Amino acid sequence: MKLNIALLAGDGIGPEVIDQAVKVSDAVAQKFGHEITWKPALTGAAAIDAVGEPYPDATHEVCKNADAVLFGAIGHPKYDNDPSAPVRPEQGLLKMRKALGLFANVRPTFTFPSLLDKSPLKRERIEGTDLVFLRELTGGIYFGEKGRKDNGDTAFDNCVYTRTEVQRLAKKGFELAMTRSKKLCCVDKANVLETSRLWRETVQAMEKDYPEVTVSYEFVDAVAMRLVQWPNSYDVLITENLFGDILTDEASVISGSMGLMPSASMGAEVSLFEPIHGSYPQATGLNIANPMATVLSAAMMFENFGLMEEGKAMRDAVNKALEAGVVTEDLADGGKAYGTKEVGDWLAANI
Amino acid sequence: MKLNIALLAGDGIGPEVIDQAVKVSDAVAQKFGHEITWKPALTGAAAIDAVGEPYPDATHEVCKNADAVLFGAIGHPKYDNDPSAPVRPEQGLLKMRKALGLFANVRPTFTFPSLLDKSPLKRERIEGTDLVFLRELTGGIYFGEKGRKDNGDTAFDNCVYTRTEVQRLAKKGFELAMTRSKKLCCVDKANVLETSRLWRETVQAMEKDYPEVTVSYEFVDAVAMRLVQWPNSYDVLITENLFGDILTDEASVISGSMGLMPSASMGAEVSLFEPIHGSYPQATGLNIANPMATVLSAAMMFENFGLMEEGKAMRDAVNKALEAGVVTEDLADGGKAYGTKEVGDWLAANI
Ligand SMILES: CC(C)[C@H](C(=O)O)[C@@H](O)C(=O)O
Ligand SMILES: CC(C)[C@H](C(=O)O)[C@@H](O)C(=O)O
Repeated sequence: MKLNIALLAGDGIGPEVIDQAVKVSDAVAQKFGHEITWKPALTGAAAIDAVGEPYPDATHEVCKNADAVLFGAIGHPKYDNDPSAPVRPEQGLLKMRKALGLFANVRPTFTFPSLLDKSPLKRERIEGTDLVFLRELTGGIYFGEKGRKDNGDTAFDNCVYTRTEVQRLAKKGFELAMTRSKKLCCVDKANVLETSRLWRETVQAMEKDYPEVTVSYEFVDAVAMRLVQWPNSYDVLITENLFGDILTDEASVISGSMGLMPSASMGAEVSLFEPIHGSYPQATGLNIANPMATVLSAAMMFENFGLMEEGKAMRDAVNKALEAGVVTEDLADGGKAYGTKEVGDWLAANI
Repeated sequence: MKLNIALLAGDGIGPEVIDQAVKVSDAVAQKFGHEITWKPALTGAAAIDAVGEPYPDATHEVCKNADAVLFGAIGHPKYDNDPSAPVRPEQGLLKMRKALGLFANVRPTFTFPSLLDKSPLKRERIEGTDLVFLRELTGGIYFGEKGRKDNGDTAFDNCVYTRTEVQRLAKKGFELAMTRSKKLCCVDKANVLETSRLWRETVQAMEKDYPEVTVSYEFVDAVAMRLVQWPNSYDVLITENLFGDILTDEASVISGSMGLMPSASMGAEVSLFEPIHGSYPQATGLNIANPMATVLSAAMMFENFGLMEEGKAMRDAVNKALEAGVVTEDLADGGKAYGTKEVGDWLAANI
């Protein structure tokens, strides 16, 4: 296969972890006979510094014409305490999601046996957890009309959803459930919100097309509880943009393997793959960041092209590295810590 | 003191646990020389059944004219899977909050040494946790305009906040922080939402009036994570209605003592006190529900009248009961389980 991949390294540790994912992907391509052309492009604070905006048109052109996008991380401390700065890295993220139509954010939370003890939860609570959130990513209160009235003393944000948007996301959820345990949970706040009632009735109407899937409907506050109590009771969860933002982050820390969690943002044309961790500015350039989440994101990318063996080869390499203790300092537990680059080299050599 | 207390027992186990709180409160009143007049009124599914609506005008009259409201729980399974039922118990709750102006929901999460092992979190993570959420309760997306367009295919919910609403809630937060560790965390999503930016700028402007309080600003998704990772790093947290709904429920389960957590909803005129647990329909009438959260809610009520010793007497009785193993089956751990009524009797006798 010939693959054109847009490469958005971004800020902070982004470039370092992306380098390793490229190295490991190239090893996979070589082994399985594929040809990857990487197309680097600017994003985030790096893009603001260079051209004044976080998602430049030139970057959009590169992404739009690629077969997929591999993304590092964005965010820079200089923007952190000024939510109303005129240009912010996050705006680039939102603009990119909308412009590329990345409507479904896929966020798995799973455990690695060797990392179970890193979880804040007791072992018996977290063991066996393997769930996936599908978060709607281009609608809801993120993209509704927002603004001020009364000389700035009143602020508003409008949350809007259409039936088509819900169907599109829910369809992915049903399909994913069919490839897993056939359990789907729709998370909403239908006892209060009209948008949630639209979500619920739309998903209810789709149930008949997937007779094998057992669907449950739970309120977002109840899920926020049960994720901590019994995370392994969930499998596939679908939800709207803001609830997904909160719950996927909550879910990510319960596993104890947050530094290893990949994600995908799927669009109709192109999809994007990125680690869920941030740009970790304090670690920039120190060769200490863990590249495994980015490598696993690249594995999701291969699998999304239908290249399942290729994805598995990358996963297996990560598992082997964990078992062999070839890990960065976040996982070293007082033992030997390898550098970002050294872990990348090891993974590439073990493909 | 002469106290007029509206008594809203509600649904499910509500009446049973309320009975115990009344009994223990009466014991306190007798010991400290107060006179309580209880004014029962209908609410929830019980009120729908009796008069067709969940928060009848007659109930509102009773609450408005009381010195405080003691509330049990509402909710009935017959409404659970039909979010669009024309009349629902939750509507009564929202109507009551709005009509009584209960703008600040106070939700403490603390630990009982004897219950630490019930937490889903590891002991070292949860030990020492003692935090309080102040959740705004009468604004935001709960009460903004909501509806449908395009023949029902588009739904919307508007989230609105005014500067005055934010100030009113934040003031309570600053004041509470002054009585505790002087740490206040404002939880928002100011990188995306205009209402959050209003929250943040309003709280920032109030900082100068409380120079001793250290204020931090954190995004809701980050707090959802850190609550699981390091709950004991928080003290007082303030937030808007929907974020508060999700985060207070998340916080409630981390302590392992959810069945014991009280809450208060403060208004300018009257305030309401209730356990955070629900109506637990399966346990109705079985004399197995844990009355301690309701008793502790009554303790908060006394303290809100400035009757600190009275409140403390109730807390001490609960602690003693926990130590003596006078507990309902949820806490019995295979040991002897007492009935709801028997625990209430014991607490009253130990005032
Ligand atoms: C940075 C922010 C705008 C973003 C979001 O809220 O979507 C982030 O939290 C995420 O989840 O990707
Ligand atoms: C029942 C529901 C409307 C209510 C809310 O969302 O406020 C409940 O979850 C709560 O937190 O008191």
